[in-house]
Amino acid sequence: MRGTDIMYILVSLDSNYIRPLKVMLKSLFLNNPGEKFVIYLMHSSITDEELDDLGRYVGDHGHRLEIITIDEKCFSNAPVILYYTREMYYRLLAHKFLPNDLDRILYLDPDILVINPIRKLYDMDIDGYLYAAAYHKIPSIKGINKIRLNPYDIEAYYNSGVLLMNLDLHRKCIREKDIFDFIEKNRLKLIMPDQDVLNALYSKKIKSIDEKYFNYDARYYNYYKLTSHNVWDMDHVIRNTVILHFCGKKKPWKKSYSGKFHALYKHYEKLAFPNAETQA
Amino acid sequence: MRGTDIMYILVSLDSNYIRPLKVMLKSLFLNNPGEKFVIYLMHSSITDEELDDLGRYVGDHGHRLEIITIDEKCFSNAPVILYYTREMYYRLLAHKFLPNDLDRILYLDPDILVINPIRKLYDMDIDGYLYAAAYHKIPSIKGINKIRLNPYDIEAYYNSGVLLMNLDLHRKCIREKDIFDFIEKNRLKLIMPDQDVLNALYSKKIKSIDEKYFNYDARYYNYYKLTSHNVWDMDHVIRNTVILHFCGKKKPWKKSYSGKFHALYKHYEKLAFPNAETQA
Repeated sequence: MRGTDIMYILVSLDSNYIRPLKVMLKSLFLNNPGEKFVIYLMHSSITDEELDDLGRYVGDHGHRLEIITIDEKCFSNAPVILYYTREMYYRLLAHKFLPNDLDRILYLDPDILVINPIRKLYDMDIDGYLYAAAYHKIPSIKGINKIRLNPYDIEAYYNSGVLLMNLDLHRKCIREKDIFDFIEKNRLKLIMPDQDVLNALYSKKIKSIDEKYFNYDARYYNYYKLTSHNVWDMDHVIRNTVILHFCGKKKPWKKSYSGKFHALYKHYEKLAFPNAETQA
Repeated sequence: MRGTDIMYILVSLDSNYIRPLKVMLKSLFLNNPGEKFVIYLMHSSITDEELDDLGRYVGDHGHRLEIITIDEKCFSNAPVILYYTREMYYRLLAHKFLPNDLDRILYLDPDILVINPIRKLYDMDIDGYLYAAAYHKIPSIKGINKIRLNPYDIEAYYNSGVLLMNLDLHRKCIREKDIFDFIEKNRLKLIMPDQDVLNALYSKKIKSIDEKYFNYDARYYNYYKLTSHNVWDMDHVIRNTVILHFCGKKKPWKKSYSGKFHALYKHYEKLAFPNAETQA
């Protein structure tokens, strides 16, 4: 399928994240004029009414939504961890459900704003790599996660919120059994299961991309600015960052949120929902 | 001229403010789709090249720029105050230079973002009033200015950055001599001369409009939020505030700026200047 101009985007979520998803898609569409997107949505519990509405939303913007409904039975032999549903496997095993002729797709979390064109990221050379992903370098985070997953000798802790997937290679290399075995063996240690699996099993096959461009953690404006000797000031971020990721528990669609990019998020939210005042 | 759909906007500035003006106009045009604007620019020192460029910019957005070049001789009999040029009179005496059949115009400072439709403000009933303007209620500011201009018995200190002008009444009531006399008499007391004149001479003929909608001081997000019992949170501001005013010395186009609406300002600045990275 490469060589055409269409970009394929993968998302995976439940009904609670449809609203942020629409905001994310609005920012993606607005900042990538002239591009055509096909959005693959993997889910198991979103209602038909919600799916219809989302399909119209994507269609009204000139793009296409493809729905992949996962039967929960698919992963009936998979281990389940407290607090986590089987949906955590969808992202890791997406290649099993996507069309066979699709050779790459860009997975995006819904707690994201796409504020510049993503073409460069999407077309990146990932020959020989399973993924392109960014690791978050904030020292404390990196340190903690390295210690926790130490036996697997991780060089960096990749964030699984933005993943460019080399599907051809996934079909050859990523096996359900490896993933299930790993989770079974480490179930007490895992904090963010899918991200932990990604890092423990595949980090050596991940092409590292710069988080400041492709997975900017919206909590760390001051850190990025300081460590770049003020190069990454607000002007530079707005002009150069492609993907702004609202990591962590505090989300910009919640009443209690406060942060450097709050006004910008609300701006896109208004564009996505011009008539709705309600917020979480 | 009323009854037509065109909205008339007045700006007055020198070359240093052309860049922020373009950002302000971009936000005005984007958030008022379907409207037609005529922008009157009063100036005395902007170069022909800059004026041509600005005319093209406004024209490319489907609107019209009208230039009013003021000969400095016009105010040769006006008192001049240290640090201030004669341009401070342009706003107060605009009716002398604007077409006689124009009955209202909306003056806007260039350090503004227009983030929602301004039609309601523009069409406001101002019969019997010289202006509609907002006063800034932050207690300390109000207190200081009331004391300073006390002899003139001001009830509120109006901000002169957003002024809906009743030009018919200006032609009848506003006289150069009153303004010059006042300035002559108070020259040592004046801090912001044009705003001081507005308040001292005309405050009783100003229709008061809500600053949170029409002249939101971008420095005081927390104050507005707190005093409104959290009604004016970020969601509410983005959906309801029409005019966001970056008052004070620190400007969002400067390197050193930091504030709640920094990212949003930079977003509009990028839209106005998609290819220019430079900033002040």
